[in-house]
Amino acid sequence: MPAIRILTESDLRQLVPLDLGAVQCVEDAFRSLATEAVRMPPILRLDIPENRGEVDIKTAYLPKLDGFAVKISPGFFDNPKIGLPSTNGLMALFSSKTGLVQALLLDNGYLTDVRTAAAGAVAAKHLARDDASVAAIFGAGMQARLQLQALALVRPICQARIWARDAAKAEAVAQELSVRFGISVTAYADPARAVAGSDIIVTTTPASQPVLKADWLRPGQHVTAMGSDAGHKNEIDPAAIPLADLYVADDLRQARRLGELHHAITAGAVLDDASFPELGEIVAGSTPGRVSALQITIADLTGTGAQDTAIASLAYRRAEATGSGRTYEK
Amino acid sequence: MPAIRILTESDLRQLVPLDLGAVQCVEDAFRSLATEAVRMPPILRLDIPENRGEVDIKTAYLPKLDGFAVKISPGFFDNPKIGLPSTNGLMALFSSKTGLVQALLLDNGYLTDVRTAAAGAVAAKHLARDDASVAAIFGAGMQARLQLQALALVRPICQARIWARDAAKAEAVAQELSVRFGISVTAYADPARAVAGSDIIVTTTPASQPVLKADWLRPGQHVTAMGSDAGHKNEIDPAAIPLADLYVADDLRQARRLGELHHAITAGAVLDDASFPELGEIVAGSTPGRVSALQITIADLTGTGAQDTAIASLAYRRAEATGSGRTYEK
Repeated sequence: MPAIRILTESDLRQLVPLDLGAVQCVEDAFRSLATEAVRMPPILRLDIPENRGEVDIKTAYLPKLDGFAVKISPGFFDNPKIGLPSTNGLMALFSSKTGLVQALLLDNGYLTDVRTAAAGAVAAKHLARDDASVAAIFGAGMQARLQLQALALVRPICQARIWARDAAKAEAVAQELSVRFGISVTAYADPARAVAGSDIIVTTTPASQPVLKADWLRPGQHVTAMGSDAGHKNEIDPAAIPLADLYVADDLRQARRLGELHHAITAGAVLDDASFPELGEIVAGSTPGRVSALQITIADLTGTGAQDTAIASLAYRRAEATGSGRTYEK
Repeated sequence: MPAIRILTESDLRQLVPLDLGAVQCVEDAFRSLATEAVRMPPILRLDIPENRGEVDIKTAYLPKLDGFAVKISPGFFDNPKIGLPSTNGLMALFSSKTGLVQALLLDNGYLTDVRTAAAGAVAAKHLARDDASVAAIFGAGMQARLQLQALALVRPICQARIWARDAAKAEAVAQELSVRFGISVTAYADPARAVAGSDIIVTTTPASQPVLKADWLRPGQHVTAMGSDAGHKNEIDPAAIPLADLYVADDLRQARRLGELHHAITAGAVLDDASFPELGEIVAGSTPGRVSALQITIADLTGTGAQDTAIASLAYRRAEATGSGRTYEK
């Protein structure tokens, strides 16, 4: 049997930084979703409510890639009480030709962080105004940081605003990011004020009640909502979806179940069989993205197995090329 | 982060032989299914038809066990043409308290072989006559061998018969097993003759048309059908299900989709909402198993994530106790 390559989180941080290469990789994955016979089964979900645990398992086969990833993402929300991170997990990469294990990526969720932020950049690249320079970020966690970093890869961001339910955290993140990126990053206590005058708003919270109101939105703004990956999560006012000139899902079927769209349907703001473009169709050019500086656009990102397979394949190709990690003879 | 224990197939063959300990472990898993708040989501299935590949992902949480396994089982049916086994795969074991990875079991499907054969023993223990001594095995693959070995752990088997579509393979397996187990094992060309006079019949084939006819069955016989784990597979004549005095599924919901029951329903031999006991209820004693020497009994085994979590947990406990395998610092 061929050897298995094992890559740790620190290997993977070296191999796959959040840069334009990662954005390109995820953009290609979205294009594949729209143009190739990708197979992406629904997420397998295991709940362990006794321990406030939930496990998502995602996979996808992309015909142009040599391997398919299976990602196992546990989230155990009492972990911080005992000094452990809530989320972790790993990916396994298998040959699409033989099904043999090629690599185990012990990333503790790092690659998910990267591919999720990269999807935000892909959405902004196709849906935000070219001159978008002011970003409002809702949330103060890892994705708040990474989404801003990702936006700056594709748009000339020179000012950012942070709003979070915990004002002290928002302040700390604003300080940290203004030093890290050398731009003005300010904490806002009032989310409506943070949105006013922003070109791009990215919501990265685990909110179960909307944190972004529809009537705060103005022509020309782009919203990426990436916090919701489960049916009870909801960041965006249901009324914002029909109000937008262009609403785009990463995976429409999944957004109807897990995304902001789910809540807009439940609220009666959108018909349950209403059709919307997917991000991949816009990347592929089969559907237009933003066509005027006055449109309001919304991207609803729930996370796809295609992104996981793409980023895992990128990591593996680079690890093979550089001999990173260790190989394990079975 | 705690270290991850990595166990190879050869480690696991040492740690978890097919013995009464494995049967007990799988029996406990079935009891848990009937008596505890086990969570076992439907199988995630990924098909890669271009390469005759299919991937099943199973998981289950059993409250009494410290960890839950996620099993990834690829089957790529052109592999033998290039000298590779069709099936392989691995299991990952996670803490049920924290979701952290505890162990990677690089078993290439070995633990699945063991837990599947062990389920055959559990079924025979509760459904075959105590004095069952003659076994007919349909099929000439790994499970044909292991199911006979498993039966001999729980019943006084002194004679076995092998029928397979490929008579030469049946002959070779019969020779091999008669030497290995020191009992009379004979290849039969006629499956009806193999069944006549047998106490237990185990079907282990990938048949998509029935290989066991209902009118071959006689009072006192027990049948375990374990070959079907997908909707198109069918080993047992649909008429056999209503003819049996006792039909038992490992997982009734799954058997309706993937098992012999599926075909009996499709054929109109059984109503689609007909209720039947599950093996776990019989193990737990809440439903009787065989109550007379004259009953015809059928066990329909499709394979459950609960078995995977149970056998992976057994392997991990024994590996921890003996320091087997290697630990990997993340």
